[in-house]
Amino acid sequence: MTTAQESFDRLWAELEPIGRNPANGGYRRFAWTPEDAALREWFAGEATARGLDLTTDRAGNQWAWWGDPDEGVAQERPGVVLGSHLDSVPDGGAFDGPLGIISAFVALDALRDKGYQPSRPIGVVNFGDEEGARFGIACAGSRIITGALPADQALALTDSDAVSMSAAIRRAGGDPSELGRDEETLRRVGVFIELHVEQGRGLIDLDRPVAVGSAIWPHGRWRFDLPGKANHAGTTRLADRHDPMLALADVIQQTRGLAERFGVLGTCGKVQVEPNAVNAIPSRVTGWLDARGADPGYVQAFVEALDDVVGGHGGSMRQESWTHETLLDLALAERLAGLLSDAPVLPTGAGHDAGILANAGIRTAMLFVRNPTGVSHSPAEHADRDDCLLGVAALATVVEDLAVE
Amino acid sequence: MTTAQESFDRLWAELEPIGRNPANGGYRRFAWTPEDAALREWFAGEATARGLDLTTDRAGNQWAWWGDPDEGVAQERPGVVLGSHLDSVPDGGAFDGPLGIISAFVALDALRDKGYQPSRPIGVVNFGDEEGARFGIACAGSRIITGALPADQALALTDSDAVSMSAAIRRAGGDPSELGRDEETLRRVGVFIELHVEQGRGLIDLDRPVAVGSAIWPHGRWRFDLPGKANHAGTTRLADRHDPMLALADVIQQTRGLAERFGVLGTCGKVQVEPNAVNAIPSRVTGWLDARGADPGYVQAFVEALDDVVGGHGGSMRQESWTHETLLDLALAERLAGLLSDAPVLPTGAGHDAGILANAGIRTAMLFVRNPTGVSHSPAEHADRDDCLLGVAALATVVEDLAVE
Repeated sequence: MTTAQESFDRLWAELEPIGRNPANGGYRRFAWTPEDAALREWFAGEATARGLDLTTDRAGNQWAWWGDPDEGVAQERPGVVLGSHLDSVPDGGAFDGPLGIISAFVALDALRDKGYQPSRPIGVVNFGDEEGARFGIACAGSRIITGALPADQALALTDSDAVSMSAAIRRAGGDPSELGRDEETLRRVGVFIELHVEQGRGLIDLDRPVAVGSAIWPHGRWRFDLPGKANHAGTTRLADRHDPMLALADVIQQTRGLAERFGVLGTCGKVQVEPNAVNAIPSRVTGWLDARGADPGYVQAFVEALDDVVGGHGGSMRQESWTHETLLDLALAERLAGLLSDAPVLPTGAGHDAGILANAGIRTAMLFVRNPTGVSHSPAEHADRDDCLLGVAALATVVEDLAVE
Repeated sequence: MTTAQESFDRLWAELEPIGRNPANGGYRRFAWTPEDAALREWFAGEATARGLDLTTDRAGNQWAWWGDPDEGVAQERPGVVLGSHLDSVPDGGAFDGPLGIISAFVALDALRDKGYQPSRPIGVVNFGDEEGARFGIACAGSRIITGALPADQALALTDSDAVSMSAAIRRAGGDPSELGRDEETLRRVGVFIELHVEQGRGLIDLDRPVAVGSAIWPHGRWRFDLPGKANHAGTTRLADRHDPMLALADVIQQTRGLAERFGVLGTCGKVQVEPNAVNAIPSRVTGWLDARGADPGYVQAFVEALDDVVGGHGGSMRQESWTHETLLDLALAERLAGLLSDAPVLPTGAGHDAGILANAGIRTAMLFVRNPTGVSHSPAEHADRDDCLLGVAALATVVEDLAVE
């Protein structure tokens, strides 16, 4: 009988090389790429090895079931589902996403090893395209099956090489015409628990290994386009220039200044310059804004102020996504905190598939595992193995408790 | 007998589709790519069609000779060479480079049609990699054969996909071990005349179609790296961030401010953000600076002031290239201006292979053809056909005059 530690180490070692950037140890695991296919194959293999039934929903999310999920629906005791995602931001860390899936499998192993027999179906889910690194919309997999992202909008999204999501799915061997809200899948989920590495310093400050999630801040993404006039950098007088880089500089600075004023988080982390040549004044600069905060009113006021700044440079800004504040199930959070030695209950600024499911009316909770660097979306992201194993144990405890409801 | 206009139109139409970006009508013709190969094939075909002898030098630059260039050397009457380049900046215009080569071929046609027999060799040259769009060093082809760019440095340059120039040449079917200073080629060039579309508004203001070049401003390229700390955009407090985008914004603004103060041209036209994700604070921003001016002392003072700005953000800046002020041959410029109805004599801020050859001690002149938009390195770059044909006639006049020296 393998221990949870051995099982955790093995799964971790299997995932480690997939999509790893040797230059910095970060990960490049984007939706519908060969790396994504390798991760899906790994998930399917782990499901099969455990005798779980593998299904794929209308957005390509993978579900591994212990027990018949439709029997759970028929008995009005739908499944307890654990899971997260396997994709990454560019050069992201190893924990954001995979920790939740590995921990789910290891928690199931621990329950089986002690002879546990589930009295309702238990599932593990791998949500696709959570980071939105390729097509710009975060949590695309969960948004599509809940209807928050209509299929036609999703399929028309394009990556930086102008490949549509529709074409990407087809090239990956999928069927884009399948996409859409998936009632059959949703009704199988009685409760969803997403375990995730913490993406801040809350547990460091509290000196605790595991927390329960309370809420996800409202957050959104905007794209802004700043027009300019392409010209030769060596022959165009300064006074004759219309250089959109100067507008970009102003937008970056005002993003920080206005975020401080409104008490929100505002980030300009992505930029595309056309044509991006040393000796050419750019014809256009496109930037992206990420904005979040505890209060949606302040976030919106911040974005409106920035919209004025962009407009003042002759540019335009449009919303690419917006997720309302998500209050995870309060009674469930309190119950989990009680089960887990009065674990702290914390909100997060990061979006998660858990938030999408909660907004779709599914009873949802989150568990956070301490991150000693406090850093995420970076190779520096980390969780100590001892803390990870406490996260696994917490998941097993929660499943046992929920399964007898 | 075809007229110069028909010949010009035909050559123009042949080049038009190669490397054209249908999205904006600009060109993407980068060194050692399939587009570059197509352009080289076109050049070779035009040389062959005219019965010219085609040679390729140690940097892959193509030379088409009317008359034996080595006989010219033996008789101490080395060749009169016309030409320019066929590569482009990203989304560059159709005229920057190709106009000089098409005009050279059409000028030769015009001379032949009137029964002209050259009394010294006449050449047309296609310099490779003039824009430096792929490997960062402008005029790489002429710098390599004159020794201004040592072969080992050139071969180690990498493009944005980390492909070295050495690998790129090999993939294009060339032999990178050939690269180096090419005495045999250089001594064949008695005088070099580069015709080029004007990249400013000098001829518009003067209401003249053609000018003679006097000097090329000193100019250079620098790369600056601004370090940051990658982190999650949704969970990292503003006060805890080390966001290199803010440093970039400051460098962009100071580039303009200091350029105004020092009376030089300074441009930040190229930026790379790592990892360039909407929801990630960047780990690093790299930018490039293009700096030029009439006086090298002011350009250097400007760059030093900007180096302090970059250093103040914990970043570093290093020179990628520097070209001293180039005074084209004054007596030759005056002679050409006299031949061409007292054409105006103008300096330029743009670098050219003509400048590299002049700095290598070759007698060199430039002709500029009016650009009614004043815009270059952009699809808006233009020259009216009537002005282009006046440029062709000017080249023919100059060749006849120089050939009897």
